[in-house]
Amino acid sequence: MSALDSLKADLSGLQIEDNPQIVKQKSRDFFWYSPVLKQQLDHVTGDLVVTPKSEAEVIRVLKSCYAHDVPVTVRGAGTGNYGQAMPLSGGVILNLAELNKVKEIRPGVVVAEAGAIISKIDEETRAHSGQELRLHPSTYRTATIGGFIAGGSGGIGSINWGGLRDLGNVIRLRVLTLEAEPRVLEMTGEDLHKVMHAYGTNGVITEVEMPLTAAYDWVDVVVGFDAFMDGVRFADAVGNQDGLLLKELAPISAPLPHDYFLRHQKYIRKDQSVVVCMVAPFAMDAFAAFVGRQPKASILYRSDTVDEDAKKGLPPVYELAWNHTTLRGLRVDPAITYLQVLYPFPNHVEKVRIMTDLLGDEVPAHLEFVRFDGKITCFGLPVVRYTTEERLNEIMRLHEENGCPIFNPHRYTLEEGGMKQTDDVQLAFKREADPKGLLNPGKMIAWEDPNYDYSSDKLFLFPGLKRA
Amino acid sequence: MSALDSLKADLSGLQIEDNPQIVKQKSRDFFWYSPVLKQQLDHVTGDLVVTPKSEAEVIRVLKSCYAHDVPVTVRGAGTGNYGQAMPLSGGVILNLAELNKVKEIRPGVVVAEAGAIISKIDEETRAHSGQELRLHPSTYRTATIGGFIAGGSGGIGSINWGGLRDLGNVIRLRVLTLEAEPRVLEMTGEDLHKVMHAYGTNGVITEVEMPLTAAYDWVDVVVGFDAFMDGVRFADAVGNQDGLLLKELAPISAPLPHDYFLRHQKYIRKDQSVVVCMVAPFAMDAFAAFVGRQPKASILYRSDTVDEDAKKGLPPVYELAWNHTTLRGLRVDPAITYLQVLYPFPNHVEKVRIMTDLLGDEVPAHLEFVRFDGKITCFGLPVVRYTTEERLNEIMRLHEENGCPIFNPHRYTLEEGGMKQTDDVQLAFKREADPKGLLNPGKMIAWEDPNYDYSSDKLFLFPGLKRA
Ligand SMILES: Cc1cc2nc3c(=O)[nH]c(=O)nc-3n(C[C@H](O)[C@H](O)[C@H](O)COP(=O)(O)OP(=O)(O)OC[C@H]3O[C@@H](n4cnc5c(N)ncnc54)[C@H](O)[C@@H]3O)c2cc1C
Ligand SMILES: Cc1cc2nc3c(=O)[nH]c(=O)nc-3n(C[C@H](O)[C@H](O)[C@H](O)COP(=O)(O)OP(=O)(O)OC[C@H]3O[C@@H](n4cnc5c(N)ncnc54)[C@H](O)[C@@H]3O)c2cc1C
Repeated sequence: MSALDSLKADLSGLQIEDNPQIVKQKSRDFFWYSPVLKQQLDHVTGDLVVTPKSEAEVIRVLKSCYAHDVPVTVRGAGTGNYGQAMPLSGGVILNLAELNKVKEIRPGVVVAEAGAIISKIDEETRAHSGQELRLHPSTYRTATIGGFIAGGSGGIGSINWGGLRDLGNVIRLRVLTLEAEPRVLEMTGEDLHKVMHAYGTNGVITEVEMPLTAAYDWVDVVVGFDAFMDGVRFADAVGNQDGLLLKELAPISAPLPHDYFLRHQKYIRKDQSVVVCMVAPFAMDAFAAFVGRQPKASILYRSDTVDEDAKKGLPPVYELAWNHTTLRGLRVDPAITYLQVLYPFPNHVEKVRIMTDLLGDEVPAHLEFVRFDGKITCFGLPVVRYTTEERLNEIMRLHEENGCPIFNPHRYTLEEGGMKQTDDVQLAFKREADPKGLLNPGKMIAWEDPNYDYSSDKLFLFPGLKRA
Repeated sequence: MSALDSLKADLSGLQIEDNPQIVKQKSRDFFWYSPVLKQQLDHVTGDLVVTPKSEAEVIRVLKSCYAHDVPVTVRGAGTGNYGQAMPLSGGVILNLAELNKVKEIRPGVVVAEAGAIISKIDEETRAHSGQELRLHPSTYRTATIGGFIAGGSGGIGSINWGGLRDLGNVIRLRVLTLEAEPRVLEMTGEDLHKVMHAYGTNGVITEVEMPLTAAYDWVDVVVGFDAFMDGVRFADAVGNQDGLLLKELAPISAPLPHDYFLRHQKYIRKDQSVVVCMVAPFAMDAFAAFVGRQPKASILYRSDTVDEDAKKGLPPVYELAWNHTTLRGLRVDPAITYLQVLYPFPNHVEKVRIMTDLLGDEVPAHLEFVRFDGKITCFGLPVVRYTTEERLNEIMRLHEENGCPIFNPHRYTLEEGGMKQTDDVQLAFKREADPKGLLNPGKMIAWEDPNYDYSSDKLFLFPGLKRA
């Protein structure tokens, strides 16, 4: 009997899918944003999808995979952009979609199962006590909380709370190891970092405890500018207004807003840059007063005064932001791709100016203002009008030469996507929690090839990647 | 009939007090913190106290005072530190203590009458929907919301929300003018600044609309350090942790904590400096993890683990902070006084070091970390071991020479206490709202003496100040 057959036998009674069509579909994420990853990973597929309904069932899966040496790749909703959830060596897709209960809500805290959809959690916490999560990706309505913690970084709300990596933005994680007898670990404080943003390479998160904040009926606002840099300066100034409560603050350069935001197009001229905002309803007076001080700013759209008919059919503005900007762009022009940049404080505005001057309409800017190490600064998710991989690398090099670090979204490994450094804490924990190296193989270079030379500037090729 | 007799006749049916003893008591605030103000203002008293029960009654008082040319000084709880509420030219003390209803609570918003005690507002918003005000002075349990807006600046919560001056921290004020027919004005947005922190010189606030935030059972924490500067660096680092929700963050230099915080004394060695914190309960794990990273920090006290008996009799730590530090000091050593300093970002930590090195135990440091123009920085309310007014002025000069602006708490005028500049918006509004100049006379130099020379470095002497 093959390992997979033995596994299936072990797991009888669980929800298992092995129709290759469906398995392949559940083996993919949004890796195709990147022309580089698209080429590398398009063929990747797992062997079967298991959808446990309880933590006990997850333990059964892990135990059996350990026994039969079958790789396990955890899947939330598969909305990651770097192939994080793609099973490079095949094996089991552990689909957590049905581990989705909200278990407890109290002041400032929610406990939920890892497969819960983020917006569903907020629906419950709002109804319960007017609370919501601090941070969510723009994939609010599709992504799972566990996938966000294991594979995401920040998003809507980061203008107030920084990123997931920041101490305090996750309270507790319940984690299973992949051992002969899977252990159940409760992680808090300093330990959390072991499994956060580790792409599920060193444990399976089954339950999360997250901080909540006050929920409001956020007002969507689009502010228009003739010159992009005026929008950037405006956003920087608004972000530094301590009494103005915003949840999102993103300058986007012309012509992207007009060309990509099709349903908002009627509000935006082609040559207009915008700043996309979410503002607390009770802050709208103050926000409007602040806009009034800026002769170059005008409010193009605000959801609290537009009539209901006009509003119908418009997406919430958080679905114009973060990687939804890119998604909307890809729908209009499949030839584009994007980058992820940090413009470090305190010279972030000037650095944006330098890079936009340098690259012009080849790399139209999209910024996300956030709190980063206590300061308001900006990330960039610029659109790249893609020509060749060489030119893409050149564009990245230009950013780094100008002091703007790149988080490369065209790489599927933890190290190459981040800062090209081994995360020793995560690696050490993988040794403990996944001694056989079966969890999401190929994503942690430090595990696969401890002597890998990051300075080579080559691309890591995971030897275990099944060939097409 | 004298003006006052006519006034009394007009106001028959209202609650009026003219017992000189009681009137004098209601004519004082905490001006005596300052040895300078104590000497200047000790004799000051109004002529009668009127305590209206409704806005309509306030209007009656204003109308009659206008008719009879009687000065009106609004009084909240009289907890100001600069003689703000003291009637320099006598007249009516308009006591708003009974205008104290909470009128409306909704998500993010409370509407209250101006005389409501701040902690009473929070009691109602907490019970209603788990909300609380963003900011409060350490006089939370005694001060009125109207007095805070008209005479205060910030306090507990400023580490998140900046100060009252920041756009968005007050939503709407309802203001009465002192004219033949008092007008009722609703002010929002840009207009708010006209009457905020104007000491009631240009309008009477009868109703406020304030933003709320989520209420938590804040944990009181005292962190100890052998060296004060280690505490300062710790506070600066904690303040810049975007995911750690704190409400208060105040380093206080040895020997003040041990010498002044008598009821916490058992937790603090005489040579120990402390950082006083209020931490969200669900952030305590992360906070403790962060403290664990600092070899020089140790938690001396935390209210969430101490046993109930030990906790009994301890004041909340917000009553160790802001001007309560000074108050506790004055109780132990009536010879001290204090200053108010800004250590501007980004060199605030270094500036604190320079000033503490320079002044040593003559001016033991007490800092309050706050958000200021979007950055974490610190104010200082250092204790001054007072000798002479000349030396006090010298100490202020030393601060300013070192790039640390002083907000002089030894002056009763708006201009001298702030940045020695006429506030044109407030002055213009006084012309409209108080054409006879009857509201809190003597507090706005620009009104009393438009040609006053601020550079003279002399003290403004209000000619209308009744002699003792
Ligand atoms: C249009 C678009 C917009 C986006 N915007 C944002 C954004 O604003 N911010 C942002 O951070 N990301 C963003 N992303 C990326 C992604 O949507 C988010 O990070 C999302 O939270 C991932 O959740 P998921 O449930 O889809 O995770 P998946 O894609 O299923 O998984 C992500 C990674 O986590 C692992 N994993 C999943 N669940 C678990 C678990 N329970 N235990 C252990 N490992 C697990 C997976 O193996 C995988 O490596 C965006 C993507 C798209 C396509
Ligand atoms: C121990 C101690 C600690 C303190 N801590 C802080 C602190 O942390 N932060 C801070 O900002 N301040 C602080 N203060 C100063 C003071 O307590 C606060 O500013 C407080 O909010 C003032 O409120 P009150 O009701 O006592 O005002 P009052 O002292 O009665 O009045 C203050 C000023 O406002 C005017 N005024 C009052 N009500 C109105 C109204 N309705 N309309 C128009 N004008 C009005 C008065 O005429 C006066 O000029 C402290 C003082 C003490 C003694």
